[in-house]
Amino acid sequence: MSSHLSFRVEAVDLCGARAGFLTTSHGSVPTPLFMPVGTAASVKGVDIGRVAETGAGMLLANTYHLHLRPGEKIVEQAGGLAKFMGWSGPTLTDSGGFQVFSLAKQVRVSEEGAFFRSHLDGSAVHLTPELSMQIQEQLGADIAMQLDEVIALPAERSRVEGAMQRSLRWATRCVTAHVREDQALFGIVQGGLEPDLRQQSAEALCQMPFAGYAVGGLSVGEGPQAMVAALEATVPHLPSDKPRYLMGVGQPRDIVAAVAAGIDMFDCVLPTRCGRNSLAYTFQGPVRLRNACHASDQRPLEEGCPCRACQHSRSYLRHLFMSGEMLGPILASIHNLTFYQRLVAMLREAIVADRFVDVCDQIRSRYP
Amino acid sequence: MSSHLSFRVEAVDLCGARAGFLTTSHGSVPTPLFMPVGTAASVKGVDIGRVAETGAGMLLANTYHLHLRPGEKIVEQAGGLAKFMGWSGPTLTDSGGFQVFSLAKQVRVSEEGAFFRSHLDGSAVHLTPELSMQIQEQLGADIAMQLDEVIALPAERSRVEGAMQRSLRWATRCVTAHVREDQALFGIVQGGLEPDLRQQSAEALCQMPFAGYAVGGLSVGEGPQAMVAALEATVPHLPSDKPRYLMGVGQPRDIVAAVAAGIDMFDCVLPTRCGRNSLAYTFQGPVRLRNACHASDQRPLEEGCPCRACQHSRSYLRHLFMSGEMLGPILASIHNLTFYQRLVAMLREAIVADRFVDVCDQIRSRYP
Repeated sequence: MSSHLSFRVEAVDLCGARAGFLTTSHGSVPTPLFMPVGTAASVKGVDIGRVAETGAGMLLANTYHLHLRPGEKIVEQAGGLAKFMGWSGPTLTDSGGFQVFSLAKQVRVSEEGAFFRSHLDGSAVHLTPELSMQIQEQLGADIAMQLDEVIALPAERSRVEGAMQRSLRWATRCVTAHVREDQALFGIVQGGLEPDLRQQSAEALCQMPFAGYAVGGLSVGEGPQAMVAALEATVPHLPSDKPRYLMGVGQPRDIVAAVAAGIDMFDCVLPTRCGRNSLAYTFQGPVRLRNACHASDQRPLEEGCPCRACQHSRSYLRHLFMSGEMLGPILASIHNLTFYQRLVAMLREAIVADRFVDVCDQIRSRYP
Repeated sequence: MSSHLSFRVEAVDLCGARAGFLTTSHGSVPTPLFMPVGTAASVKGVDIGRVAETGAGMLLANTYHLHLRPGEKIVEQAGGLAKFMGWSGPTLTDSGGFQVFSLAKQVRVSEEGAFFRSHLDGSAVHLTPELSMQIQEQLGADIAMQLDEVIALPAERSRVEGAMQRSLRWATRCVTAHVREDQALFGIVQGGLEPDLRQQSAEALCQMPFAGYAVGGLSVGEGPQAMVAALEATVPHLPSDKPRYLMGVGQPRDIVAAVAAGIDMFDCVLPTRCGRNSLAYTFQGPVRLRNACHASDQRPLEEGCPCRACQHSRSYLRHLFMSGEMLGPILASIHNLTFYQRLVAMLREAIVADRFVDVCDQIRSRYP
């Protein structure tokens, strides 16, 4: 099922951080990899040409959103997600599980699947592992994700274990249901913050023919230390020759910590969401663009940044936000997406050049 | 005062439509010319690189808005309007007069100038011809506009005549106050829908050393026939060797009619405002992108259009609007700006090739 996906590790740092390449039939992307989120087949506020200019190699879209609107049939008619968006590179769709638990209404989960009502119009949906596979095959991304049961943390151990075990049974059903040969399927490790459950989940998934493994159920408010602990309980039990994907993460410090723990792939809405709210990421730390100190500052947001926003002054960017101009959110989103791509590129370069720890310290000093 | 501006007519159609070149120290632009509106130093929703890609040669910004926010001092510190926006081509600022009458609160006009309160924070401003010149010199566009008194139409003849006469006195004061030699100053013909007042205004302004002449006080709900009648009463009394600018116009049919009447320059918010509201202009007529008929239409908005939006399907564009994605307004704005540039380029080409009447008929058949 993964014949069109390959992964090659090029360098490994002493701590376990990896530099590699993920190759799909739509191209090869370097890892560590950060995927901008195109929730509804659009990276919010940024046209697809500008997305490419940020250095992004691979995009993520949300199955839940696309199923509700415009529906997978419309996307399929366009030739799949990438063509629908006008994107020529690789793509990944999530399973819809996370959004069911965070956005949908009247959610009831049974062994069969998740019943819920759309947050848009209240229409009833019964998302089973089989339906998630069918939808994702119609969306046609290079990588599909298994359906898993996501729960809020903290939770009682029995609840965490129950969801983890159910996610394993759903993983089996996903493997059986998934037939599209040009689409790779990833499993998702669950187990909350319980190290032994994480290990158990990882070991069981490794017995199944997944092309890669995600770590799910994190970045739900558990804090960076607990996140790292969960990764350390998980990653050693994943095969070293398959890509490892930490879903929905995160802040720059989280990405640094997760790369150090051996993670290869990330996605997160922060660059665009923060950008829309006038928060810009720079290698000197975060910059709040509405602050009065930028009123007549002729410097760019970040010296040496090649993005469109950095062709303007901080003074101009602040003016755009203060005036409520759409261009403020647009340019800040472009800058933040560029920052995240530069961040993972810098980590990759450091791994290859054996300077990883120094670079991590440097970034952590600005994003404690 | 116009040493940095020159205008050359290259071809004149039988009806009087002109093809020319307007040259400023920031470059030469072909006429008929359509200037996208960058109200607050931003063409709404479109980054400056994408604005350039639409084919736009010259941009307009609003003195009223920039005076209130961020203030002309901030713009001056950046090196002027063009540098502030990151634009390398020519720019024009209006005088603030029109916005005072359409946006400001508690407006009182006297011979001295217009007293008003900001629509943003209620602060008091006294906009005189001298202050408008000072602000526009600090904003530093290639072309500044005289302050004029704008009134709502229809109005009694005595009211129209009073405003026209006052605008002439203000024109004299603007000429006296304007000192910046690298900035050209345009006069504005007033006179409402009264042909003899239009003639009187035009003839008086022609005695003053303006680098170009605008027709003001139109596109305020008078309808296309009345607009053309006002133009026909004005244009013959303007010098043939100076550019003629119809402010704030308009729909494609208005632009066609005004070019036929001998107008060289236009500005209008319609391409971006309509784009944000999912109305797209095409040479086959307007397209409402939310309509269900586009749901699975794989065709571009317009065959042969080189814009970013037309690299996507109508199906995708409709999806963006239905999903409330910012990218819908962004792409539709880009398309409409491109349409307006292609429209004036097509008119220009037709004038040069002696096919103007045919091309006008063609456009009018789609935009009656």
